[in-house]
Amino acid sequence: MNYQSKIRVKAPATVANLVCGFDILGLALNDPEDIMEMCLSEQPGIRIKHTDGYDLPVEPEKNVAGAALIAFLQELKKDIGIDLSINKCIKPGSGLGSSAASSAGAVVAANYLTGNTFSNEDLVRFAMNGEKVASGVKHADNIAPCIYGGITLIRSIFPLDIIPLSGPPLYVAVIHPQIEVRTSDARQILRKEVKLKDAIKQWGNIAGLVSGFLKNDYNLIGRSLEDVIIEPVRSILIPGFDQVKRGSKEAGALGGGISGSGPSIFMLCKEKTTADNVQRIMSEVYEKIGVDYKTYITTVNYNGVRIEPIVKGN
Amino acid sequence: MNYQSKIRVKAPATVANLVCGFDILGLALNDPEDIMEMCLSEQPGIRIKHTDGYDLPVEPEKNVAGAALIAFLQELKKDIGIDLSINKCIKPGSGLGSSAASSAGAVVAANYLTGNTFSNEDLVRFAMNGEKVASGVKHADNIAPCIYGGITLIRSIFPLDIIPLSGPPLYVAVIHPQIEVRTSDARQILRKEVKLKDAIKQWGNIAGLVSGFLKNDYNLIGRSLEDVIIEPVRSILIPGFDQVKRGSKEAGALGGGISGSGPSIFMLCKEKTTADNVQRIMSEVYEKIGVDYKTYITTVNYNGVRIEPIVKGN
Repeated sequence: MNYQSKIRVKAPATVANLVCGFDILGLALNDPEDIMEMCLSEQPGIRIKHTDGYDLPVEPEKNVAGAALIAFLQELKKDIGIDLSINKCIKPGSGLGSSAASSAGAVVAANYLTGNTFSNEDLVRFAMNGEKVASGVKHADNIAPCIYGGITLIRSIFPLDIIPLSGPPLYVAVIHPQIEVRTSDARQILRKEVKLKDAIKQWGNIAGLVSGFLKNDYNLIGRSLEDVIIEPVRSILIPGFDQVKRGSKEAGALGGGISGSGPSIFMLCKEKTTADNVQRIMSEVYEKIGVDYKTYITTVNYNGVRIEPIVKGN
Repeated sequence: MNYQSKIRVKAPATVANLVCGFDILGLALNDPEDIMEMCLSEQPGIRIKHTDGYDLPVEPEKNVAGAALIAFLQELKKDIGIDLSINKCIKPGSGLGSSAASSAGAVVAANYLTGNTFSNEDLVRFAMNGEKVASGVKHADNIAPCIYGGITLIRSIFPLDIIPLSGPPLYVAVIHPQIEVRTSDARQILRKEVKLKDAIKQWGNIAGLVSGFLKNDYNLIGRSLEDVIIEPVRSILIPGFDQVKRGSKEAGALGGGISGSGPSIFMLCKEKTTADNVQRIMSEVYEKIGVDYKTYITTVNYNGVRIEPIVKGN
């Protein structure tokens, strides 16, 4: 056990439900990211402090990072304590994997400090307990890219089967309209049954998208970024969605859609200049609507959660 | 125009509806294959002769190769004639892409003899007219692998978007029970709506299967060869299906399922010895049931339709 070191953890934002990849595809972003600090203690228990202003619960059972750490410690079977300080830069409820960043960052950090006992897949399993606290459902399409970095396919949740995918360099333009879309509402409005012909169209697109990533084929990625099942229903919860999407594609974005269950919208672009134009268009739409927003221009984060030792004076 | 040459065409059998890849994934086999002979003529019209015993219609409009050639000639806009002789070795109604082989073989041959005016994608488009004659529906998941060879993804039919996929070496064990499953029946028993959670499972598997092929990952291919939507319904039309599948997987097959709309069953294997064992198990099941059958052990055909000039004395 390393009781001496204090480490700093940077846990990236993630985009889940990658257009046609509902519930199975996610990718990690280089911006924004949560920053956390952790050290071990001989005094058992999990002590969480939030230095951000989001007024999140700090009781371990109710805190997403806490729930993930409880699962971690249960399997580690060592009587140690953990002190964790969280500074969230990914706003909760943004659709950018805020809860996943806390859960994933916490277990990656704890694993590092206790001698890297567990595999990435184990860590995803622990961190999914945080997602359960946040949304009531164990899902991995934010957690997995947050931990593995890059683009990840979750072929199956039970049993867990995570497949990291390579892809070509991509710029990602993101807009986060400052409205609230509750994940539970976004789940509830989905139809429980879908037309077989729509499902076939969707799995043609998901197969095309995975091929496009693995073959570094930008055109194929663009052609496959189409969601005929989830987006038509969920996008009605996001004012300005259609204008943003249409404008972004006209400006040369490969495509994109709702990030997670929204309200953030993301667009994948081949060139930085295109992403810049897309960001401008996104902003103009929300200026007109009169809804506050925040934008990001970033790239795919191929590292996942990063750990930095804190040296004195830092 | 090449009015002198007579060519021989070998058009491979194909497996469509590759387990979770219903309507979008197919692969070409090295055995069985149809053999056709074609030459051009200055006398307009399409003249078809069958040298097999299947009693198929020879009027161009009613013959699958004829329908494909009509579409071909319409776009070629040249006043030529075609003489075609077909010896089918892929039994019609086997689920092994018999009609696709005739249609695809005919248009590839005609394109060769008229100076290769058209792209493979054009040829798929023409040959789909043959599928319409055979089953009432234009589909490309037999035609595309037959023409391109290998494993092909049909991301979309309208507009046509074909993506050839690479894959690791695979042995394919096939059993063709000598019973009739009509494509129209096999279509009719499918439910028009599917549960969203099943659709998600299916697109997780199709994404896994495509990744497995492109990453040459046999284990991932095996884990992804699962169909929760079509197979549970259609397999009831094929006596012995469950025993064949269970026995084949116990013998080490990666997985498999119904070929096309059946009744043939195929199993993908990493090793030749496994495929041999699977063939034995398949045969034993049908011996017990008392249904006649034919088996093949073959590999993925990466050439597609092949053309050979016929030299004198041949």
